[in-house]
Amino acid sequence: MKLYTYFRSSAAYRVRIALALKGLDYEAVPVHLVRGGGEQHQPEYRALNPAGLLPALEAGGQVLTQSLAIIEYLDETHPEPPLLPGSALDRARIRAIAQTIACEVHPLNNLRVLKYLSGTLAVDEAAKKAWYHHWVGSGLATVERLLAGDPRTGTFCHGDTPTLADLCLAPQVFNARRFDCDLSAMPTITRIVAACEALEAFIQASPARQPDAE
Amino acid sequence: MKLYTYFRSSAAYRVRIALALKGLDYEAVPVHLVRGGGEQHQPEYRALNPAGLLPALEAGGQVLTQSLAIIEYLDETHPEPPLLPGSALDRARIRAIAQTIACEVHPLNNLRVLKYLSGTLAVDEAAKKAWYHHWVGSGLATVERLLAGDPRTGTFCHGDTPTLADLCLAPQVFNARRFDCDLSAMPTITRIVAACEALEAFIQASPARQPDAE
Repeated sequence: MKLYTYFRSSAAYRVRIALALKGLDYEAVPVHLVRGGGEQHQPEYRALNPAGLLPALEAGGQVLTQSLAIIEYLDETHPEPPLLPGSALDRARIRAIAQTIACEVHPLNNLRVLKYLSGTLAVDEAAKKAWYHHWVGSGLATVERLLAGDPRTGTFCHGDTPTLADLCLAPQVFNARRFDCDLSAMPTITRIVAACEALEAFIQASPARQPDAE
Repeated sequence: MKLYTYFRSSAAYRVRIALALKGLDYEAVPVHLVRGGGEQHQPEYRALNPAGLLPALEAGGQVLTQSLAIIEYLDETHPEPPLLPGSALDRARIRAIAQTIACEVHPLNNLRVLKYLSGTLAVDEAAKKAWYHHWVGSGLATVERLLAGDPRTGTFCHGDTPTLADLCLAPQVFNARRFDCDLSAMPTITRIVAACEALEAFIQASPARQPDAE
């Protein structure tokens, strides 16, 4: 398998954790999101992934896109350890936590949106930072409420093994810290991410450990 | 089952189509997204869904949130007709198309984001409309490229029966038309959505047919 990745892409980071947890070997192909206006916009990459976004995974003779779709594919084809364990209701909760991050937080704060704000809308740095903090803050506050006090929350977001939810949460919190977001009102998230960050798979997948890290 | 819904919410619309395709009865509980500052922000609804977003589904003694997670749950518990048919690679493609809409288009253009633009950032109507058109245009252009020329595309996004991808595409196109987006460069999307709109389940689930339609 070949993973198109960038060390700081939190969507690629999710997939790297899945690959590491499942012990799957892959070739990492770095796509620099900033250099030269962004290598993801070059025709060679657009031919692979028309969205011009990371990650993409070559597997089974196809190019797979969208991080959550890729992780579900990896989980279906390499079931151990399961990233969506339990019953249909368990999976519904795991996917809802993951999607709260992947659909409500991350899309608003990725590079292309921040560029549109400062470019087309001429928003200044302070207002751009406030935008970032607003959506991370409200999205993670929702996740905290979904986690805190729910008996299904364990060492990790859902039970005592990492699931798809944790694969989204840890990279989002990594980003939040990089942009100085205040997480002091989110003790459950902070505790769970600390548990994630102690696992070898999360360490291996982290931005600092990538061959393209700067 | 009880579905918290609003006739114009495209995320709720996705779930309504799934329920209709599977022939499942449910009680519709309207939550007005605009009236009184938005009923989704009231404490009663926030207690059910901390995100303050639609839809939410009461099922199996739990409150499920996030439309794609809800649809996956319905598909696991009521497998016929399948909304994620085929192999793991088929499902990866279906989910990727769905997520291109649910993660790259819809989150940027929903009500709370448009409010932030015009409120906090004091963006004028023309710039707000340009923002909307930009993200719908680029997102649907990606979907068009994923669909056109791929032999797996059939009457619908993936094969000849509607899947999770169509459940996301038809509501997004409904919204795009409401905001006068130009879809003339998207013949595959236009053809597929016409096929969707001819199906009784899509008609039943459409905004105009909802009890809270205005």
